[in-house]
Amino acid sequence: MSHNTARVRVRYAETDKMQVAYYAHYFVWFEVGRCELLRSLGSAYRELEAAGFMLPAIEAHCEYRRPARYDDELTILTHGRLLSPARVRFDYEVQRPADQALTAVGHTVHAVVDRDGRPTRLRAEIRKALA
Amino acid sequence: MSHNTARVRVRYAETDKMQVAYYAHYFVWFEVGRCELLRSLGSAYRELEAAGFMLPAIEAHCEYRRPARYDDELTILTHGRLLSPARVRFDYEVQRPADQALTAVGHTVHAVVDRDGRPTRLRAEIRKALA
Amino acid sequence: MSHNTARVRVRYAETDKMQVAYYAHYFVWFEVGRCELLRSLGSAYRELEAAGFMLPAIEAHCEYRRPARYDDELTILTHGRLLSPARVRFDYEVQRPADQALTAVGHTVHAVVDRDGRPTRLRAEIRKALA
Amino acid sequence: MSHNTARVRVRYAETDKMQVAYYAHYFVWFEVGRCELLRSLGSAYRELEAAGFMLPAIEAHCEYRRPARYDDELTILTHGRLLSPARVRFDYEVQRPADQALTAVGHTVHAVVDRDGRPTRLRAEIRKALA
Repeated sequence: MSHNTARVRVRYAETDKMQVAYYAHYFVWFEVGRCELLRSLGSAYRELEAAGFMLPAIEAHCEYRRPARYDDELTILTHGRLLSPARVRFDYEVQRPADQALTAVGHTVHAVVDRDGRPTRLRAEIRKALA
Repeated sequence: MSHNTARVRVRYAETDKMQVAYYAHYFVWFEVGRCELLRSLGSAYRELEAAGFMLPAIEAHCEYRRPARYDDELTILTHGRLLSPARVRFDYEVQRPADQALTAVGHTVHAVVDRDGRPTRLRAEIRKALA
Repeated sequence: MSHNTARVRVRYAETDKMQVAYYAHYFVWFEVGRCELLRSLGSAYRELEAAGFMLPAIEAHCEYRRPARYDDELTILTHGRLLSPARVRFDYEVQRPADQALTAVGHTVHAVVDRDGRPTRLRAEIRKALA
Repeated sequence: MSHNTARVRVRYAETDKMQVAYYAHYFVWFEVGRCELLRSLGSAYRELEAAGFMLPAIEAHCEYRRPARYDDELTILTHGRLLSPARVRFDYEVQRPADQALTAVGHTVHAVVDRDGRPTRLRAEIRKALA
């Protein structure tokens, strides 16, 4: 199991007429979180794809605790762990350091597939890091 | 409990470099589904907000079964039901009629709050329809 | 030169904290407009891409006249015309039928390239329709 | 006239099936650029809005030179200048430092309005900085 912290700032584009961040964008921030986690493990997701590994989401979940607002700086704490050689789960906590609010928690589950969409084992070094 | 079917066509903007619809956009389609359900019940969400009721998401969940692709016509079958006078749950099935594929299933849970963010009871006629 | 009218309804996801549609989304609606125009000419953009023709944007422009709001039904009137055998321009008018407001006008210019990114001539029947 | 450089990394969410950044997202990066420019001048856009000044876009333009790809680090060089006491123009250059490619250039023009949407003069210190 590995973890990493990424940072985003809420863009105006990500707000909605309720004047808070629109709920679907948290899943984009989750993407930022898991990509930075993979990068910290030495395998940027871009390189994984170039090497023929793809991690499509098969499940996504988020619980919204406190609204995030325009221009808020948020941290995404991401934990990753292997569910099986061909399945990975990431857990996320989206925090706002300014007031130490936990704005949301969630998780995603990803299959590991090759270019033809067939299940495949993730690289050994990442499997080891996420074990 | 009430249900309704909405339609969307996958936009190029909604695809990603895996050449399928990006996972976060399903939550946007869920939004289309629940708004059309509320409209079918006689209370467009726009009117609910104008009357001082807001339904922020407090939970969102999606399971991805088959990738949706650019230009696919999808139907979003939405069921709504009241969890409490101030809480509503919507369940969604995103289907692709062309090959009868079920691309995703999911749900969202929403609080009902007034303009000051305080929990409030949804209008009686909607509560009745979603009971 | 050809034209076509497409319809969209402003999604909550497309609004921002100014409580109007965020400016970048008009370019997504332009995409809807030009895709429906191509479809009306007998060549859905999906089929063009499958046949090896891609139309990346090389220029995009929009002038915002009146804000579009959540749940507004908008029409996108799109005109297309060939600038050269390998270059196409689309002009757009985004109108709100409810109050006959012209919310925005704009245009995009697209190169026609093959799968390797090399300039190529668009199919003869589309060139003819857009001449 | 003032300028500033902001940084973004292309998100998977921002790519499309052509496997490059979708054209509308450049306008979101422009937003990042102008907000960081305003912040560097001492008036974060969030504070401007809180003080009753809003800068809705009235024109947006982009020319795409080289595709930006997933995970690319981009810099947005933004210049701002006052067109009139109630109108501001920002010019943008989106560069990819890794290969010194200029991926896009563009500009946006913004009205300065108060909470009721009436034209108003921007704060003197910002007008001075952008003069």
